[in-house]
Amino acid sequence: MSSGEEILKTGSIRHKRVHHSLLRERSQADFDPYELKLFIFDSEDMLKAKESADKAIEIHDVFRTPSEWHSWDREEKVRDAMRKIYHFHKKQKDIGFQGLTYKRMMVACEESMGQVPVDLHYYMFVTCIKYLASDEQKALWLSDAKKLKMHGCYAQTEMGHGSNIAGLETTATFDRSTDEFVIHTPSLSAYKFWPGELGKFATHAIVFAKLIIDGTDHGVQSFLVEIRDKRNHCLLPGVIAGDIGPKYGFNMKDNGYMALNHVRIPRTQMLSRYSEVSEEGVFTKKGNLKILYTAMQTIRILIVRMAFKNLSKGLTIAIRYGIVRTQFKDKAGSDEERAIIDYQTHQFKLIPILSQCYAFLFVYQKVSKDFSDLKKRIKAGDLTGINDLHTISSGMKAFYTWMTLEGLETCRQSCGGAGYSMFSGLPGLVQDYAAQVTYEGDNTVMAQQGARFLVKSLGKMMKGETLTGWVSYLNKVYEVTEYKCKAEKPEDFDSLETLEEMLVVKTCFMVGDTCMKMMQGDEPMQTKWNEMYQQELVEMSKAHTMLVTFQIFRDGIKSSWLQESTKKHLCNLCKVFAAHQIYLDSAPLFECGYFSGGHQKMLLEYMKMQFKLIRPVMLPLIESFGHNDNILNSCIGNSYGDILENQLESAVNSDLNRKDMFPDFEKYMKPFYNAKI
Amino acid sequence: MSSGEEILKTGSIRHKRVHHSLLRERSQADFDPYELKLFIFDSEDMLKAKESADKAIEIHDVFRTPSEWHSWDREEKVRDAMRKIYHFHKKQKDIGFQGLTYKRMMVACEESMGQVPVDLHYYMFVTCIKYLASDEQKALWLSDAKKLKMHGCYAQTEMGHGSNIAGLETTATFDRSTDEFVIHTPSLSAYKFWPGELGKFATHAIVFAKLIIDGTDHGVQSFLVEIRDKRNHCLLPGVIAGDIGPKYGFNMKDNGYMALNHVRIPRTQMLSRYSEVSEEGVFTKKGNLKILYTAMQTIRILIVRMAFKNLSKGLTIAIRYGIVRTQFKDKAGSDEERAIIDYQTHQFKLIPILSQCYAFLFVYQKVSKDFSDLKKRIKAGDLTGINDLHTISSGMKAFYTWMTLEGLETCRQSCGGAGYSMFSGLPGLVQDYAAQVTYEGDNTVMAQQGARFLVKSLGKMMKGETLTGWVSYLNKVYEVTEYKCKAEKPEDFDSLETLEEMLVVKTCFMVGDTCMKMMQGDEPMQTKWNEMYQQELVEMSKAHTMLVTFQIFRDGIKSSWLQESTKKHLCNLCKVFAAHQIYLDSAPLFECGYFSGGHQKMLLEYMKMQFKLIRPVMLPLIESFGHNDNILNSCIGNSYGDILENQLESAVNSDLNRKDMFPDFEKYMKPFYNAKI
Repeated sequence: MSSGEEILKTGSIRHKRVHHSLLRERSQADFDPYELKLFIFDSEDMLKAKESADKAIEIHDVFRTPSEWHSWDREEKVRDAMRKIYHFHKKQKDIGFQGLTYKRMMVACEESMGQVPVDLHYYMFVTCIKYLASDEQKALWLSDAKKLKMHGCYAQTEMGHGSNIAGLETTATFDRSTDEFVIHTPSLSAYKFWPGELGKFATHAIVFAKLIIDGTDHGVQSFLVEIRDKRNHCLLPGVIAGDIGPKYGFNMKDNGYMALNHVRIPRTQMLSRYSEVSEEGVFTKKGNLKILYTAMQTIRILIVRMAFKNLSKGLTIAIRYGIVRTQFKDKAGSDEERAIIDYQTHQFKLIPILSQCYAFLFVYQKVSKDFSDLKKRIKAGDLTGINDLHTISSGMKAFYTWMTLEGLETCRQSCGGAGYSMFSGLPGLVQDYAAQVTYEGDNTVMAQQGARFLVKSLGKMMKGETLTGWVSYLNKVYEVTEYKCKAEKPEDFDSLETLEEMLVVKTCFMVGDTCMKMMQGDEPMQTKWNEMYQQELVEMSKAHTMLVTFQIFRDGIKSSWLQESTKKHLCNLCKVFAAHQIYLDSAPLFECGYFSGGHQKMLLEYMKMQFKLIRPVMLPLIESFGHNDNILNSCIGNSYGDILENQLESAVNSDLNRKDMFPDFEKYMKPFYNAKI
Repeated sequence: MSSGEEILKTGSIRHKRVHHSLLRERSQADFDPYELKLFIFDSEDMLKAKESADKAIEIHDVFRTPSEWHSWDREEKVRDAMRKIYHFHKKQKDIGFQGLTYKRMMVACEESMGQVPVDLHYYMFVTCIKYLASDEQKALWLSDAKKLKMHGCYAQTEMGHGSNIAGLETTATFDRSTDEFVIHTPSLSAYKFWPGELGKFATHAIVFAKLIIDGTDHGVQSFLVEIRDKRNHCLLPGVIAGDIGPKYGFNMKDNGYMALNHVRIPRTQMLSRYSEVSEEGVFTKKGNLKILYTAMQTIRILIVRMAFKNLSKGLTIAIRYGIVRTQFKDKAGSDEERAIIDYQTHQFKLIPILSQCYAFLFVYQKVSKDFSDLKKRIKAGDLTGINDLHTISSGMKAFYTWMTLEGLETCRQSCGGAGYSMFSGLPGLVQDYAAQVTYEGDNTVMAQQGARFLVKSLGKMMKGETLTGWVSYLNKVYEVTEYKCKAEKPEDFDSLETLEEMLVVKTCFMVGDTCMKMMQGDEPMQTKWNEMYQQELVEMSKAHTMLVTFQIFRDGIKSSWLQESTKKHLCNLCKVFAAHQIYLDSAPLFECGYFSGGHQKMLLEYMKMQFKLIRPVMLPLIESFGHNDNILNSCIGNSYGDILENQLESAVNSDLNRKDMFPDFEKYMKPFYNAKI
């Protein structure tokens, strides 16, 4: 039924025809997208690993996620994940992954397969052994863990306690007579609940439990517990475990529950890099617990990575769709319908998110490098900078995950009706990503942790200390809040210095003001932290995180090896990042007198100017993230700009169309139609 | 494994034991929750219908939605919906619905069963016949439609056109020789896509198509087309149709696609209340098209209803959970862990949403009544007020749905890990509700429609006309932006007049300023509307909608029959509604000089004061919405405060635990464990 004209206009995966709008927009890139892509992947090596993964999916059907996936039940989804990881390992030689570290292999996995049934094993269980186990324990366990000869999970969270780890109720009681610990779940609220891969797969668990020796509670320690018999995968005696049921997203993951009924393990299975219990039952701490934070950092840095990875997927779909999809003939002097991305509000939705995506990328590169350097220093016994990284990463965890989830939902909504179909790929991104605002630390708790460091720093500053690192701007906290914004027209905001000044003044005002409030009054600190000023503490933590993010973004662009033609666009995004953060909440700048009447309007006009510069290059900018069509799996966001054919084809082939009518239709609905009810 | 203490503490559905915290909070209600419930349901009659529905679910298993529902595939979900509607009709006599209008029956359905396979038939198809069909056509079709002897759908949206109805491509070409219309889908983009109940159920469709007579396009009209053979439910010749596949939510609904290949219908099947085609092929318009808007209003008013219905469900779960769930022993002078609802940020999340929920309720009651009065006036030939209702409902559609979706997601996130499980009921609320920001009019388009009326009104005002109705505040637009806020301390905000003044000044500034901009420059109006000022037009539309919402809320409380003890709390919520809207975006008030330094901080302190007053009654306030446990279907938000037992039980009984291990586990994962890969 297609008209001749239509054949020329639409994108088509089947006919390998790219929509003319996408062709046009790619051709107008005035920078080198490949250079940017290389920068994003950080090295030729990593880019090659990714390209191998892409090729693997093209060649090997087994890695492709068919559109039916959305209709599968959980069992089928898990089966698909298992099948992929199996074939991935088998085909390593063909694909060219051989010789890659398991980290790079996991990256390639992530690129090619989405969720696999072993990522928590590697990211949590193996990491734990690396950081919490003693050298002797590592010699026994690490190699097997890396080779997946044991499949482990990280069993910390309980039904009653998530954020408050000190409140965990599972007990590990020392039995001197047998040189064992007895691990036990004393109550309903002590059931382990949520650990991924616990539900069906894991043969082992690192169980976090209260160490009890002769009635004394020594606090939470970690213990390796075997939970399933490797021969038949049955639960071992005393172990109750299973899957927790269907979730909002992540339904290919078997998050589990577990109760242990007086399960005995050798004393030597308490992970003992930083603490140990002797044969006599003497508990000692050793080493520097702060080093333990490095394990946590791995995860936090991963979270920053997952932020830009996911956001860039959502944006790739939304930007492509926005360019191809038209609605309303309301462009003056044109008989064509307008591309939805050419509506101002559409740009207002997507361009700030694009700026955040790149901001997170630059932050990821910076903190990865800092963390790498930190690990080297720690090995040499030097702990400088350990606090800085920890506290900035708390705020990043909280705010980046919130912003990314909001951004993904905005991408989904920006695609109208199509964004409601699972085949668009967008709901899945939202559903799966949503877990991140909850796990690895409740966001509000994380935000407050960030605030704690700020309050402490300001206290030190007021006692005469000069602050360094990310909080050094607070040295002038009371001075800057006397500044006045000199902008007289929108163009005056077009300066990284001015934009930084706005963020600094805003943050200083919020931090200074909140700390002042905290120092007054006799109420206990706990009351001030949780009941009186918690809201402003969280808000100031955000302001600080956004300032640091901007600074890292700006510095990262400047010091990068990219050409000026590329840097120019990233710089525009960096400016939008700052301007948008202020525009969203400029009240503090008015409150302290920095902004006066007219400045918010100027800022809005400035952003519109920036959008005009960024709009022509939105497509090549987002496509530099290189998300393969098979990964995006989107009937509206594929690289061909096919937004009709593939969508209809997916619909026609979908599950409910395989039968004529629903089972029991005759029984339940026909009586209505035949007026028998 | 439960300790004695625990038995006393936890809520338990199984043991019919209510958590002590919920008991305590219910007992501290200093108003009559039943009175409020009666007010919410608007009449004894409606409350009785709902209570019958609740009782029906208790007694008849068939109406209960089991927790397994979340693991069912779409086919099973649809079957469940059919089964329920069938039994509902069969049991009408038992339950006591007999004699209710079908509208009340649908309300009871909604209460008892959630989504059913006939709601679009009633709300869209039957409504269309009522409003668009001529008297003769109604005599032929309406009775059968109401009795479900034909199952209809509303086939308007196409793959290429959703918002832009004028761009629909399906054609209806008049064939004089046979006195028929030939309905045809000329291209891929013309496929009908999304209509609910089209995919599998509908025997008929009201198809919106371009009327072509002798080559002249007369614009979009509506046509009744039979699409399935009632005898065997097969698609009739020339009809291609099916389900569009899995969606973010609403997966018990068969949204469909359809193409018509030269399908012929009698000329008399063009719905002809407002336009008709004679035997000779002469097209005439008749009656007043504005009356047509009344059909649209029915849906818009329903949307306001669904906003508070859904938001109150999410809040019921989140508030109950927040009261029962504890985390961290950080309350000064207490050894107990703190209920999460006693964290300031938690109240900051939930109380504004509670205020919005009640605001939407009051607006619903007002616009329902206005609409009722309007319908009576229209019958008498008087069209006064038709514009007012239409334009205010555009903004309500846009902003209430956005706010409700955000609110539901906030409720979900506020429940931490538990909010990620489908068993909490929260993800389902988000997923299903999310359709509302997209269907029945794209939100940005709706928001702009609201703005159009404001711009037009201001134009009239500046030509000397005195404005009436919802925009009458604009009569003083330039005067009020000279006002200064007189508040000197937080308590000064505790006044409905002051809060209204803030909203009026904010809106006047935004409307006045944007209209000024629109009047300058030579660019075409289309360019100004869509490319230059679209962002501020949408923002001013929001400000206006929030002002009107506040006014209706305030007036509604005042004129209600509720006792002072109840009104007092609703009034506090009304104040929070206004204060929060300003707090979220007070920049306009600073820009025009109404606010000066310190006012934003005072507003924050004022909200904290209000939260202290509202916190003790949050539970009875939300429980007055009366959501039955079987409807909420939440393992954490049930009326017993059971947040552990039921959650674990649902987990243990969930789908993946019915088998020992995943199919193909031996094939794909064992090789790893046995180091064979």
